[in-house]
Amino acid sequence: MSTRYKIKVSYDGTNYSGWQVQPHNRTVQGELERLLAEMTAQKHVRVESSGRTDAGVHARAQVAHFDLPKPIDPNYFMRGLNAQLDRDIRVTSFERVSPEFHARFSAVGKEYRYFIYNGLIVPPTKRLYRLQEGRPLDVDRMRTAAELLVGEHDFAPFSANPRRELDGTVRTVHSFLVRKHGADITLEVQGSGFLYKMVRSLAGILIDVGMGRREPEIIHDVFAHGKRTAIVQTAQPHGLFLWKVFY
Amino acid sequence: MSTRYKIKVSYDGTNYSGWQVQPHNRTVQGELERLLAEMTAQKHVRVESSGRTDAGVHARAQVAHFDLPKPIDPNYFMRGLNAQLDRDIRVTSFERVSPEFHARFSAVGKEYRYFIYNGLIVPPTKRLYRLQEGRPLDVDRMRTAAELLVGEHDFAPFSANPRRELDGTVRTVHSFLVRKHGADITLEVQGSGFLYKMVRSLAGILIDVGMGRREPEIIHDVFAHGKRTAIVQTAQPHGLFLWKVFY
Repeated sequence: MSTRYKIKVSYDGTNYSGWQVQPHNRTVQGELERLLAEMTAQKHVRVESSGRTDAGVHARAQVAHFDLPKPIDPNYFMRGLNAQLDRDIRVTSFERVSPEFHARFSAVGKEYRYFIYNGLIVPPTKRLYRLQEGRPLDVDRMRTAAELLVGEHDFAPFSANPRRELDGTVRTVHSFLVRKHGADITLEVQGSGFLYKMVRSLAGILIDVGMGRREPEIIHDVFAHGKRTAIVQTAQPHGLFLWKVFY
Repeated sequence: MSTRYKIKVSYDGTNYSGWQVQPHNRTVQGELERLLAEMTAQKHVRVESSGRTDAGVHARAQVAHFDLPKPIDPNYFMRGLNAQLDRDIRVTSFERVSPEFHARFSAVGKEYRYFIYNGLIVPPTKRLYRLQEGRPLDVDRMRTAAELLVGEHDFAPFSANPRRELDGTVRTVHSFLVRKHGADITLEVQGSGFLYKMVRSLAGILIDVGMGRREPEIIHDVFAHGKRTAIVQTAQPHGLFLWKVFY
């Protein structure tokens, strides 16, 4: 009878090809699975997350689970993992959970944050964690558009690959805040779930609305059209953080 | 008759061996001098800063000056420099100044900030810009010690090499604030000038006071003793930012 563990993982996605294991690239899942297999002398430990993140995307608190053949001391194991992981991945919580817990299927919602630096020159120490946009963004316009995205909708026009979505393309956005603090603009979106590249696509259209290339009401048109078109651009990955997974 | 230019430079010090030119290492001054010489077809352009920063130290707004044989368009040149510099160095301002202006000798004061993450696990995206300290720091004790550092003092005990200081070792600290916001503790110090590794030494003793290894009144003893001892430790460079130079 194996035991199941849940971990929270924070990472700087800059030097990883995303979450998901790939044969020849360094990924967050790959690093965790390799170390867990070493530490437990298993051939393979499969680490299942709440969902993949793309190359370059960061996580404040990704959640994952895995099974080990016998119980271990979570605190001791967490320290051991962090001692061996590079400092751009940190395990911030490690606990035993019921075998019914599933990082992806048990999740009831997620929060993502997208960070924009609205100025000509992004401070060097923020360059890896902000989308830089030099043209002035009108946050009131962005807020109007963000409000139109809240609710249950078919978000297919905001998926990079709607046909790949196994659970359909209807999702609920619970809240979508646009905060401004000096040159920093932050998009905070909570929802039941998000399609492939959906947050980056929502960020893309809000940025276009903010700079006046589109009217906020374009959101109505995009939903009405129902399919992805060139109107929806995918914003760069490095501004995006998986912020929180709700269970 | 050459013309003098003043620039502000922001940099992420992580991948540099500090400000000052070194024969075989990548430095901020080295990068700027190389590009300016290329852009102006000069053999050498000497870039003089307000003062060197050590390997790993960051700058929000370093100031430097240099002379060019004939006038150039500052805006055009600033864009050209930024286009060729790596993104961890940005020139944020570029202006013609009087030949009397000197980045070091005209400076009347400086502000440094030292960033501490007071928690067991520093978020990966902050790891290059915060000193991590897991033991709880008492900011009230740190503030008491910081107050004792304000004023005109012989800071020789806080210099890594007092004999190297050409202008003596007396300096004035105008203000020294300790701010706390969640796990982030920031030391903000303004003064007439700072000795070699002085800010990191001040940070080192404040951290020792904050964790209870020293009493705040140790500052009196250190000044009274007058010489550097092992009581004063130099905090790591990556928490330090040269914040502002006053003219």
